[in-house]
Amino acid sequence: MSSREDLYPSRQQAEPLWLERQDPVLYQQDLAAAPIAPELIAQYERDGYLVIPELFSAAEVAAMQAELERLRSDPEVLASDEAIRELHSGALRSLFEIHRHDGLFAQLACEERIAGVARFILGGDVYVHQSRMNLKPGFAGREFYWHSDFETWHVEDGMPRMRALSCSVLLTDNDSNNGPLMLVPGSHRHFIGCVGETPENHYQYSLRRQQVGVPDDASLSRIIGRFGIDTATGPAGSVVFFDCNTLHGSNSNITPAPRSNLFYVFNHIDNRLQAPFCAQPPRPAFVAERGPAEPLNIVAREYA
Amino acid sequence: MSSREDLYPSRQQAEPLWLERQDPVLYQQDLAAAPIAPELIAQYERDGYLVIPELFSAAEVAAMQAELERLRSDPEVLASDEAIRELHSGALRSLFEIHRHDGLFAQLACEERIAGVARFILGGDVYVHQSRMNLKPGFAGREFYWHSDFETWHVEDGMPRMRALSCSVLLTDNDSNNGPLMLVPGSHRHFIGCVGETPENHYQYSLRRQQVGVPDDASLSRIIGRFGIDTATGPAGSVVFFDCNTLHGSNSNITPAPRSNLFYVFNHIDNRLQAPFCAQPPRPAFVAERGPAEPLNIVAREYA
Repeated sequence: MSSREDLYPSRQQAEPLWLERQDPVLYQQDLAAAPIAPELIAQYERDGYLVIPELFSAAEVAAMQAELERLRSDPEVLASDEAIRELHSGALRSLFEIHRHDGLFAQLACEERIAGVARFILGGDVYVHQSRMNLKPGFAGREFYWHSDFETWHVEDGMPRMRALSCSVLLTDNDSNNGPLMLVPGSHRHFIGCVGETPENHYQYSLRRQQVGVPDDASLSRIIGRFGIDTATGPAGSVVFFDCNTLHGSNSNITPAPRSNLFYVFNHIDNRLQAPFCAQPPRPAFVAERGPAEPLNIVAREYA
Repeated sequence: MSSREDLYPSRQQAEPLWLERQDPVLYQQDLAAAPIAPELIAQYERDGYLVIPELFSAAEVAAMQAELERLRSDPEVLASDEAIRELHSGALRSLFEIHRHDGLFAQLACEERIAGVARFILGGDVYVHQSRMNLKPGFAGREFYWHSDFETWHVEDGMPRMRALSCSVLLTDNDSNNGPLMLVPGSHRHFIGCVGETPENHYQYSLRRQQVGVPDDASLSRIIGRFGIDTATGPAGSVVFFDCNTLHGSNSNITPAPRSNLFYVFNHIDNRLQAPFCAQPPRPAFVAERGPAEPLNIVAREYA
């Protein structure tokens, strides 16, 4: 760590810190030019997220599901560094960098329906900071504890400002019972600095069960008490857009219905990564893009 | 095991078994005499459960909560056999036999608003087969996997027929996010015989994490696919009545909101326990009443 400015200090202090956001949520004033209804953009700015039901057709979802099934049973994929597997069963839980290694999922990263929205909200050229497919099995899907993605991307990856967003393409129906994404509306305007130092190679287990970089109980009680909890539910093909600093998590899933999605993180080209804001070396490139990062060439396609 | 008839065999066969219920759900035809609306009784018969919102007043709930807080922090209570504690933290998860050891909770076992409904549905005198208070903490409440209570009460306790019901008094608000009880409406008419032998002293860990006596994935997919999942949500003071054979479970709870309840199981006096329907000795009395079992003297009271 150097003397450079750290707008969002975390894991450096003995007590939790509560800071106001220093960055815009919406980097764009001309709502009339939005690729989706201006009301939806306004809602995103206010709440820190947005669900668009059935943005992809059933046929498109079927094509994505088929691709996912192919990947999850490919021994080479399972053995790769990009594969994060369940602690006990060894089943695939997440596969990273799908925007590089897979034809269909690479095309999707450039798809106007998602990347176009990201470009509009973030106010200009974007690139993929991270991508993955996530599988939450039926019967035994585990919970994912509350966190702000930005907290980790800032501390461990060196993302300087809040100018990134995530886009989750639901490949299965999500209802309130099968462990849907829970979000805290309005939490994106507050940064909770966490307690505890970043351990070595934290990413290897934090992707399965995070313990550092999660807010303390008192801060969580306070922010959830103030803003409440909403869930992102919808049929397969729906897409959730959420700000990099929106607090989110999910409960376990004992229902027979699996939950899977594709996950793309778009970062503005001016917000490229620096050195991490902690004493550890940066995480590997498949988790956080550190290369030259060319702007995405966004195009409209159909995938069925 | 002897040659006596076993209407609901479980944990005896190599493959799961799917049987129809051999017993009534409602042991009473005169709906006009019901202590609650006849439509509610009909709903219970059809679905296998029933939620009555705010059956207890806020003041009554406060009195019960105070009693719960007293018990959970009493070192003698924590050290007792009746206390089931979290595997890792040691925090109290359940306390059994509250209808014997606690003044207020003993009175509640005889309360007309709950025991009167049980007596009506089960068609006559009832006694308490089991009672407990359950605590599902905020932030770290674990899931409880799908099961039919009757399966365990039959196999491990020797309850011969389906003529018992559970009554859960919610002491905290339950919404869809803090791990509410999930029930499969209609499942009470089907008995799923489970695979796997009952291990020695199974109760000591099954109360924390059940592995034997839970239905297999295929049976669960089939029955949930057919009937769906409902959740028992409601404000504190609401009461859930559910049949001994209704399939239920709950997901984890990462929200700050804890979930606690009081739990009473009423069994008809003619359905008293026999020898277990497995090769193990019966579970201890604090989990399953095996004594002379006098009928409850049901009275109407207020508890605030």
